[in-house]
Amino acid sequence: MSDLRKDPVSGRWVIIAENRADRPVEFERAPSGRIALRCPFCAGNERDTPPALADYRPPEPDSPHPWQVRVVPNKYPAMDGQRRVFQESIGVYDTMQSGGAHEVIIESPDHCLSPTDLTQEQSKLVYTVYRDRLREASRQRHLAYGMIFKNAGAAAGASLEHLHSQLIATPMVPPGAQIELDHCRQFHRRTGTCLFCAILQHELAAKQRVVAQSARFVAFCPFASRFAYESWILPRAHSSRFEQLGEDDLSELAQLVRHVVGRIESALERPAYNWLLHSAPFDTSAQDHYHWHIEIFPRLAQVAGFELGTGCFINCTSPERAAGCLRGARTRIGP
Amino acid sequence: MSDLRKDPVSGRWVIIAENRADRPVEFERAPSGRIALRCPFCAGNERDTPPALADYRPPEPDSPHPWQVRVVPNKYPAMDGQRRVFQESIGVYDTMQSGGAHEVIIESPDHCLSPTDLTQEQSKLVYTVYRDRLREASRQRHLAYGMIFKNAGAAAGASLEHLHSQLIATPMVPPGAQIELDHCRQFHRRTGTCLFCAILQHELAAKQRVVAQSARFVAFCPFASRFAYESWILPRAHSSRFEQLGEDDLSELAQLVRHVVGRIESALERPAYNWLLHSAPFDTSAQDHYHWHIEIFPRLAQVAGFELGTGCFINCTSPERAAGCLRGARTRIGP
Repeated sequence: MSDLRKDPVSGRWVIIAENRADRPVEFERAPSGRIALRCPFCAGNERDTPPALADYRPPEPDSPHPWQVRVVPNKYPAMDGQRRVFQESIGVYDTMQSGGAHEVIIESPDHCLSPTDLTQEQSKLVYTVYRDRLREASRQRHLAYGMIFKNAGAAAGASLEHLHSQLIATPMVPPGAQIELDHCRQFHRRTGTCLFCAILQHELAAKQRVVAQSARFVAFCPFASRFAYESWILPRAHSSRFEQLGEDDLSELAQLVRHVVGRIESALERPAYNWLLHSAPFDTSAQDHYHWHIEIFPRLAQVAGFELGTGCFINCTSPERAAGCLRGARTRIGP
Repeated sequence: MSDLRKDPVSGRWVIIAENRADRPVEFERAPSGRIALRCPFCAGNERDTPPALADYRPPEPDSPHPWQVRVVPNKYPAMDGQRRVFQESIGVYDTMQSGGAHEVIIESPDHCLSPTDLTQEQSKLVYTVYRDRLREASRQRHLAYGMIFKNAGAAAGASLEHLHSQLIATPMVPPGAQIELDHCRQFHRRTGTCLFCAILQHELAAKQRVVAQSARFVAFCPFASRFAYESWILPRAHSSRFEQLGEDDLSELAQLVRHVVGRIESALERPAYNWLLHSAPFDTSAQDHYHWHIEIFPRLAQVAGFELGTGCFINCTSPERAAGCLRGARTRIGP
C-alpha cells in the first residue's frame, strides 16, 4: 500500500515512501575507489534480491549463466500492493491509499554499465522484456498506467550502477502523462492528426534536429529540449502502445536506441542520463491521438531553483547544436 | 533578447540560453582542494562582474568594505533586454522572443557560504534588497513576474559558492506560478478564503508539521512535501506581495529564515538546498487569493526519471518525521 498526497497549491501528487530511505547506495564508494557493496544484480547474487517475477533463459544450454535478463520486485518499492484506490480528504488536503507495482529489470547477468556493452541479441531481449512487463501490468485490473525508465549514473538518480531499468505502474494516470494526453487529444480534435505524427513530419522536413534514422524509427533533439542533448526516439508509423510492437520492431528499436546512447556517451564522455518510455494508459481510449516514444535526457546540469519554482527550464545548448554534435560523434554501433 | 520555446506535448516553456554555457564553474575544484577560480563576488574583485545596479553602503564610515550587499546583472543571463514579447509560430511549434531581467544579489562582501554566517543586521539588509529589487522590477512595464531564488551548493545547481541569490523577471507569468494562482483563485471562489490562510490554520491546529514560529511568521514542512525536509515559511497575516513588507516584518522574517536554515544545516550536515520566494505577479489581480511564501528544498536525492516523466515525486521522509527532526536540531540562531 502506498501513501499518495496531493499538494493543494500546485496540484502535484507526491508518493511518501519511507521504506525507500533504507536502500543501499553503491555510489558512496570505498576510499580505494572499488565498490564496497556486493552487487545484488550480478549473477550468483540472486539471493540479495526478492524472488524473480520472470527470468529469461539463455538459448544455449552451455551458457555460463542461468539467465540473461531477470525481473524482480523492487526491494524498496515506491508503489506496491493489490488494493484498489481509496481516497480521503483531511481538511484542505486530498490523499490516496493505493496499490501499484515497482519492478526492476536487470539487463545482464554480468556487471556491465551501458546498453552499448550488450550484444544486439541481448539488447533485443531487453526490449522484449519491456513489452512483456507492460503487457503483464496492463492485465492487472487495479493498474491504469505503467512507465518504464532507466536512471543511469548517480547524477541521474541511480543508487546501483549495474545496468537495469525499472517499471512503476500506478492505479491512476500520473499528472505529467495526463497533460501530454490532453494536449494530444486537443490537437487531434482540432486537426484530425496525431501531434507526434505532425512533429515527426516537421522534423524530417527541417532535418536540422535529426540525430539518426532507421527504416521504422527516427531519433531527434526536440524543438523545446529542456535538457542539453535531450533526444527522443519515435516510431515513424502511428502507434499508441509499446505493448503492440512486433519482433522486428523490437530488434530495430533496440539497435537504434543503442546507436543514440553510443553517440551521447561518445560526445559527452559517458554522462549520467535518464531514459523514459512514454506509452498510452492501459485503456484504449488514446489509440488515435497518442504516440509512444522514448525520451533520453543527459544530466549535465542540476535541475535548479528557477526550474523547480517556475516549471520553466533553462537550456544552455540549442537542440540544433546538440543534434549537429551528436550526428558528428563516433560510435561503433550502427543505426 | 531571449529565445523561449514551447513544447507542444507537455506545454512546457524552455529558455534556450546558449550564452550561459560559457559560465565558469567553481565547484570543479583544483586537485589541491582549493578554489582554482578567483571569486568574482568577493569585495576587491568588483571588476570581475558587470557594473552594479545597486550597492548598499555600510552604516559605519570606517567599514573595511565599500559595500555590504551588491546587486549586479547576471554576466550570463537567462533573460535580458527591454523588448516586449514577440510571439511566432513555426509549424507545430510556438516561440517567443522577449526581454527580461536576471540579477545577482551578492549577500556579503566576505566569502561566506551560509546565511547563518551573517549578522542579524546583514541578514535584514538582504531581505530589504529583495524587496527593493522586486519593487524595481514591478515598475518595468515589460515585466509581469519576478522570482527571487537561491541555489546553495553544487547539487542545488550553484556554479559559485559565495553567498548569493538571483532574481529572474519574465514578461509572462511562468507556468508553475500560473498553476498556483489558478488553484488559489478556484479555492477562493469556492470558499471565500485564501488557500494558504486555510493551510496555515490547519497546520497550526495539527501542530505535527510545524518547525518554528515567530509573532508574524510560521515555518512548517508541507503535507505533500516533494523533497525530504522541504520547509515553507508563510506570514500569518494574509499578504499577496512580498514588496509590501514593512521594516519590522523584514527583520523578523530574516531571523526566522536563518533559524530554519540553521536547523536544516545542523540536522542534515550542511546540505545543498534551493530557496524560492513565491510572490504574486506584478499586477494586483491576485491580492485576495494569493499569499506570498518562501520554499526551501534540501537536495539530498536527485530528481530522477520517474519524477521527470510523470510529474509525480517520490519522497522517502514523511513531513511529520522531517518536522520532528528539525524541531529537535540544534542551532545557535533563535527563531
